[in-house]
Amino acid sequence: MFKLRSLVTALALVGSISVASAWEALPTQAPEPADNSSSPEKIELGKMLYHDPRLSSTGTVSCASCHNTMLGGEDNRSFSMGVGAQLGGRSAPTVWNSAFNKVQFWDGRAASLEEQAAGPVTSPVEMGMKNWDEVTTRLKGIKGYEVAFKEVYGENSITKENATKAIAAYERTLITPNSPYDKFVTGDKSALSAQQIRGMEKVAELGCTSCHSGAAFNGAGTFQKFPVNADGFLEAKYHFTKDKGVAEVSKKSQDEHFFKVPTLRNIALTAPYFHNGSVATLDEAVKVMAKLQLNKELSKEETADIVAFLNGLTGEFPKQTMPRLPETSGKTTN
Amino acid sequence: MFKLRSLVTALALVGSISVASAWEALPTQAPEPADNSSSPEKIELGKMLYHDPRLSSTGTVSCASCHNTMLGGEDNRSFSMGVGAQLGGRSAPTVWNSAFNKVQFWDGRAASLEEQAAGPVTSPVEMGMKNWDEVTTRLKGIKGYEVAFKEVYGENSITKENATKAIAAYERTLITPNSPYDKFVTGDKSALSAQQIRGMEKVAELGCTSCHSGAAFNGAGTFQKFPVNADGFLEAKYHFTKDKGVAEVSKKSQDEHFFKVPTLRNIALTAPYFHNGSVATLDEAVKVMAKLQLNKELSKEETADIVAFLNGLTGEFPKQTMPRLPETSGKTTN
Repeated sequence: MFKLRSLVTALALVGSISVASAWEALPTQAPEPADNSSSPEKIELGKMLYHDPRLSSTGTVSCASCHNTMLGGEDNRSFSMGVGAQLGGRSAPTVWNSAFNKVQFWDGRAASLEEQAAGPVTSPVEMGMKNWDEVTTRLKGIKGYEVAFKEVYGENSITKENATKAIAAYERTLITPNSPYDKFVTGDKSALSAQQIRGMEKVAELGCTSCHSGAAFNGAGTFQKFPVNADGFLEAKYHFTKDKGVAEVSKKSQDEHFFKVPTLRNIALTAPYFHNGSVATLDEAVKVMAKLQLNKELSKEETADIVAFLNGLTGEFPKQTMPRLPETSGKTTN
Repeated sequence: MFKLRSLVTALALVGSISVASAWEALPTQAPEPADNSSSPEKIELGKMLYHDPRLSSTGTVSCASCHNTMLGGEDNRSFSMGVGAQLGGRSAPTVWNSAFNKVQFWDGRAASLEEQAAGPVTSPVEMGMKNWDEVTTRLKGIKGYEVAFKEVYGENSITKENATKAIAAYERTLITPNSPYDKFVTGDKSALSAQQIRGMEKVAELGCTSCHSGAAFNGAGTFQKFPVNADGFLEAKYHFTKDKGVAEVSKKSQDEHFFKVPTLRNIALTAPYFHNGSVATLDEAVKVMAKLQLNKELSKEETADIVAFLNGLTGEFPKQTMPRLPETSGKTTN
């Protein structure tokens, strides 16, 4: 299942940012699968479903509760909180630019946004619905959804597949282009400060981008081992290895501690860090990564430069209208 | 504390809807207090604060969690769910048109939207912040709030008073005019169906509007006893008298079971009903009200007519842009 990335491009990056072609700006459009072409109506329906807490057993948790579209696309918590204030086992990844992940979830167990969208709704600790039949039954009880689904998919079309397709279509619009970094690599050399450029060079030199590669700095769907290097002090502090990553799903020892490479886009907005949200600041996250993945101790200045560069990966968030969620029509949904 | 409403206007309503002046359309602007004049910047700041879950101890509950602006201004739950999945003791009133309530909360314990906004944030079962110092400290740690408050109130202006004023200014924009009812009473006689007009006449004839009076059908800040008539069957079923209403605050026996008259605006969207959210459907709510307040048994047709009329009180919801919440800047807020 792993597309362990060739080091060729990564090595080409090392040394100099003059290899301009290695630095890619974020596309403003995400690729869509052949069986889920987008339309404004589908996106709007997806936006409604994404923000509707009635997709949870208690009517209090929507996709947006943990993947907040008004913020950095997650919840700034170590572990997300689902129905009944239950804690999930991992830190919520950002929904922004998730369209550029080839696989979804920290362990990459969903091959698409569509597949991902189906998961949390019926997770007992996330949205707590018994199954998708319960979800579609509830949606069918809300007249406005009947109308909205009909407009996109035709008569009697409230199904799990159509719901998750709409949510995925909406998520593909959640792109944050035009970060200072993007402006810089597309020609505006004043878009990054001298410190940020130093950080950018350091990131390439250290080899951060050998994993965090591509326009979304997410390795385009690759998995990597984390941590690579054992460190008793950091392990005692942050318990990184408690979570076996991909192996939690595959049950194979060779998958232990492998994780999908997370995007660095908008990283300044998504504290706390790592799969278990154990690191509170970006400074510390950078130092931890250097130590555990590259066995390097960064100086204070190097860390500050890299953090400055990472701050330059904060993009422009599209203005969105708030969806109007269809009414429950004079009776309680749940 | 009670402005028990004179029955004169109410009696004038009884009998005929030809007393056209008694039926008022909803104003499109809410009155604002002299010490909290509005501005676009203040409204935007209020919208941000209103939707920011970081105003709760867990970072998971915002004002909008229980008073959902994408829905009917509440949560369609019997009791709202705060931090740690704790249940409040009353059903969340709608935020839509709350600007037209003279007092706030079911027991009217807040004299203004400003005062109301301060409450849930530090309620242990709602948003769970220890006190407002904790809130303002957290807001001061978010650079974007520093900037937004400065723009509205000047330097170093992150205070409880300024935060609640901004929230109230935003809430005053949450108005839903142009319901079929509003169109009808301002001259479009086709806006209500024949059944809805029958329901409207019945509402006046029965005297519903003697309490649910005024443009917002909320008695303009009056309190009324509920239930007026004892009914063993309904009490056993719905436990209405468990909550002593105003007396829970005042501790005075004469205040027992008095509640602020809630608005009927958008009532079709805000199931379940009553202070304890014990009644799941609007049909049943209408029958219960007739029985307990007026000692009348409504026929199936009368009930259906009234429900049809109440559905005509669903207004037009303003299109809103989603607020961008200021980032936590590379570190965890809580």
